[in-house]
Amino acid sequence: MWNYSKMLQYPIKIKCPNPRLAKVIISQYGGPDGELAASLRYLSQRFGMPDQNAKAVLNDIGTEELAHLEMVGTLVKQLTDGVSPMEMEKVGLGPYYTDHGNGVYPQSAAGMPFNATALAVKGDPVADLTEDLAAEQKARATYEKLIDLCKDDPDVVNVLRYLREREIVHFQRFGEALNGVQDKLAQKKFYINK
Amino acid sequence: MWNYSKMLQYPIKIKCPNPRLAKVIISQYGGPDGELAASLRYLSQRFGMPDQNAKAVLNDIGTEELAHLEMVGTLVKQLTDGVSPMEMEKVGLGPYYTDHGNGVYPQSAAGMPFNATALAVKGDPVADLTEDLAAEQKARATYEKLIDLCKDDPDVVNVLRYLREREIVHFQRFGEALNGVQDKLAQKKFYINK
Amino acid sequence: MWNYSKMLQYPIKIKCPNPRLAKVIISQYGGPDGELAASLRYLSQRFGMPDQNAKAVLNDIGTEELAHLEMVGTLVKQLTDGVSPMEMEKVGLGPYYTDHGNGVYPQSAAGMPFNATALAVKGDPVADLTEDLAAEQKARATYEKLIDLCKDDPDVVNVLRYLREREIVHFQRFGEALNGVQDKLAQKKFYINK
Amino acid sequence: MWNYSKMLQYPIKIKCPNPRLAKVIISQYGGPDGELAASLRYLSQRFGMPDQNAKAVLNDIGTEELAHLEMVGTLVKQLTDGVSPMEMEKVGLGPYYTDHGNGVYPQSAAGMPFNATALAVKGDPVADLTEDLAAEQKARATYEKLIDLCKDDPDVVNVLRYLREREIVHFQRFGEALNGVQDKLAQKKFYINK
Amino acid sequence: MWNYSKMLQYPIKIKCPNPRLAKVIISQYGGPDGELAASLRYLSQRFGMPDQNAKAVLNDIGTEELAHLEMVGTLVKQLTDGVSPMEMEKVGLGPYYTDHGNGVYPQSAAGMPFNATALAVKGDPVADLTEDLAAEQKARATYEKLIDLCKDDPDVVNVLRYLREREIVHFQRFGEALNGVQDKLAQKKFYINK
Amino acid sequence: MWNYSKMLQYPIKIKCPNPRLAKVIISQYGGPDGELAASLRYLSQRFGMPDQNAKAVLNDIGTEELAHLEMVGTLVKQLTDGVSPMEMEKVGLGPYYTDHGNGVYPQSAAGMPFNATALAVKGDPVADLTEDLAAEQKARATYEKLIDLCKDDPDVVNVLRYLREREIVHFQRFGEALNGVQDKLAQKKFYINK
Repeated sequence: MWNYSKMLQYPIKIKCPNPRLAKVIISQYGGPDGELAASLRYLSQRFGMPDQNAKAVLNDIGTEELAHLEMVGTLVKQLTDGVSPMEMEKVGLGPYYTDHGNGVYPQSAAGMPFNATALAVKGDPVADLTEDLAAEQKARATYEKLIDLCKDDPDVVNVLRYLREREIVHFQRFGEALNGVQDKLAQKKFYINK
Repeated sequence: MWNYSKMLQYPIKIKCPNPRLAKVIISQYGGPDGELAASLRYLSQRFGMPDQNAKAVLNDIGTEELAHLEMVGTLVKQLTDGVSPMEMEKVGLGPYYTDHGNGVYPQSAAGMPFNATALAVKGDPVADLTEDLAAEQKARATYEKLIDLCKDDPDVVNVLRYLREREIVHFQRFGEALNGVQDKLAQKKFYINK
Repeated sequence: MWNYSKMLQYPIKIKCPNPRLAKVIISQYGGPDGELAASLRYLSQRFGMPDQNAKAVLNDIGTEELAHLEMVGTLVKQLTDGVSPMEMEKVGLGPYYTDHGNGVYPQSAAGMPFNATALAVKGDPVADLTEDLAAEQKARATYEKLIDLCKDDPDVVNVLRYLREREIVHFQRFGEALNGVQDKLAQKKFYINK
Repeated sequence: MWNYSKMLQYPIKIKCPNPRLAKVIISQYGGPDGELAASLRYLSQRFGMPDQNAKAVLNDIGTEELAHLEMVGTLVKQLTDGVSPMEMEKVGLGPYYTDHGNGVYPQSAAGMPFNATALAVKGDPVADLTEDLAAEQKARATYEKLIDLCKDDPDVVNVLRYLREREIVHFQRFGEALNGVQDKLAQKKFYINK
Repeated sequence: MWNYSKMLQYPIKIKCPNPRLAKVIISQYGGPDGELAASLRYLSQRFGMPDQNAKAVLNDIGTEELAHLEMVGTLVKQLTDGVSPMEMEKVGLGPYYTDHGNGVYPQSAAGMPFNATALAVKGDPVADLTEDLAAEQKARATYEKLIDLCKDDPDVVNVLRYLREREIVHFQRFGEALNGVQDKLAQKKFYINK
Repeated sequence: MWNYSKMLQYPIKIKCPNPRLAKVIISQYGGPDGELAASLRYLSQRFGMPDQNAKAVLNDIGTEELAHLEMVGTLVKQLTDGVSPMEMEKVGLGPYYTDHGNGVYPQSAAGMPFNATALAVKGDPVADLTEDLAAEQKARATYEKLIDLCKDDPDVVNVLRYLREREIVHFQRFGEALNGVQDKLAQKKFYINK
């Protein structure tokens, strides 16, 4: 179980609302390679992971991704705080405002509600951990795209950079966990069934 | 952010695997009215909730639903632990085994991956809290259906009853939060059950 | 069965096409909290509703929502009537025009085809009627958002206000139906707002 | 708008519940080629149909499909009426019972909630009417498959045969409407079967 | 099986990137009536097609649609080649850039990932071939909408016209195949346009 | 473009129909980690792949996966050839028969139509190739699950083993392609398994 601690993993203070940025950042909340997908993937995979070290890594990172989900939601919230319906519409958020107002809904930037088809749980330690490596790379790539689109707001970019760095750390940790699993399986560098 | 505490909210010790029960219980993991939907709904709605008390309730219950998600995942895991492919298939879990092995994947009992279309965030406090009342009733009803289907295994029923009771408590708390919001808004016309 | 009567429940005469408004109003045609979802929810729930009064309410309101679906479709049609492809594109309807021309397709404003995951039928009278209360609140909230976005066109706002008012009436009727069911069940513990 | 008339288009009196048949028949309620898809397709297409005769045909048949939707829902209801949870599970309806009890939910037999991706509105009279011809053929084929699966229950087969016959009539009417449209357009090159 | 031949079915040389056009053209890559849907529909239907001639037609056209899929992907690629993130965003491709960069992803213009609900395989030769006739009409209509939206770029229009023409040819071939099947079945009652 | 060659990549001759096996094998046709997902992923990613060697690998393997898609469809076809509706239903294929007869439809074993949410195109060479490594591991794991479920039919297992082996070869090739990309990028920090 989890205990809530009333602080963000990394502080967020956006000086000026900017719904244009919220429009794309929401993808890391509920998009295919976002923090919800990541957290749900890792916290689900751990049930079927026979390797105790890999299980602990999944638990840790899955829990951290919940904190990231909260950070991304906070970003979206602050960027749309007090923004009028007309300003929302001007940046292309008319459809979003229609169905979600100035709330935070788990969807991709394109408007697709979160769909767990974006993640896999295979009940196979090597497949699951390789999926996790891919997930971290996809999240990193998404943060880099977001940094491209948000580069005129240093407060936002600063948070996105932090989140991007964490994905790289997670990638390394999943790589090590996979090596550990493969060592035990005697399956050196991804080679299955020599 | 959240801290993980290595214990379940309520203990689960299934004596005999029984994949027939896992097959339906998975719906409270990733189905339309399950714990993931609940947690995601409440933790997302809180960003746009102007009422501080209602926000705190959303945060609390959203966090507790994460613990329930973990409990339901644990139930599914214990009920399928060590179950052979053929036994999985015999109870209709052949398709599940094909794509998820003996892992825990966020889907409905019918096999639909979790889809956030099942939950709403409207950025409207009365609509959001009424949605939450409905969510708790739907979760309660689902647990009652599951109790009907699992009644030959008291260990399972015991856990399902606990979870069902919590939904009723949540329903009451959301009802009080809604009353609080309505009192402030003095929008008596939206008042449920005069 | 139903007989068609060649008139709208409430007259609609839009003087000037305005595809910008059609773009968001379509969400009440095929979006998650729109009239199709409402009608389908009520007309489906009635089959499993043991309470005869609640069943009649579901039937009545489900039928009225069909009339609202027609009204919303008419709004969308009149607002895009004779609008050129380039004008459609200018307001962000290029993707819509690509796949649906100037037709009326059941989708959310964000472009998601209607998906019945947005509605629940639980075969439980209390859960179903609480779902209906939430549905009416969500529809009301959506009409309020649309009124915000359409406020420069009084012909449109007038229709949206009418539809919004009907949702409030439906909310009251479902509240009474739920009270009736609960009185019969004497299930005071599920009673909303004692 | 529509007025409800408290009778089925064709009488349904199932003598014995048989959930095994309900399990597959539900596909004509909310499946990809079912009555909901049909009704929604025709009632939506009519807004963008420039040809007045074709528009009237869409309106008529769309309204009749609503009556068929009600008939199919009634079939499902009668076939599962009073069926116990265990009997539901025995025929593979455990997942359905979990999320919908003995209610009627708009889904395919495979358990997919209704999704409007299954239907097209192109804002092009020839494309829309050809889509309708295909829809009627697909519905006919589905009824034939259902008749194969239900052949041991003459009460059910009788209703399915009636519905199947109506699809063939609709197919003819859409064919005539398409001919009418093509004659006006003098677009002989799109003419089917010279 | 298939052998790849390193040339497009029809040459594509876009002189100037124009992401505004890519934004809508992507629908023929992964949208409901696009080339992927077409190819997948025909190549899947052929397995269940008892008529040898119809099977060969499905195989031929299904293979040609793969070539069209490649052409549409090439169009999208050339129209976004080297386009900066800000230019992508300016034409409404910010969400696309966020999740797919300047890559080619199988989605509709509205941003929906490709979903096979858009196509039918009924295991019924008449239904399947009528579905194919509709598919070709819908693809034709989509190309006509795209030509409307792209008319200021003759290089693009030229390719779209070629693809549109092919759909008409396919429509004729499917019409002949359907006639062949019907002749054999002597099922005159399903005959379109006697 | 592609040329069709009228032979399977690997011969398939199933002596006895066995719909029980078809029921699960279909997941490699249209399931989340199946051959369609693989082919579509690689053939789409190649458009945005700047590295010429990686692009060629994507093209080759994407084309080979089309051949595997055909093989899996052939397996499903042969395993259900001439199987009666009742026999289909007996193994749990009643819903499948209802909507697809004895045809081959792109869905998962659980009955979900293929959805491209299962694959990613990020327009980032490292993320895309890591996604491909994961895809191959997930496909391998799925074939292993299928071999578990089909082990009583050596003809089927033989084909599944062949397909499984090809995934391992693809995994190696994608690993080498990723190494090549990383060498050029000198992004050692993303290097998997130093």
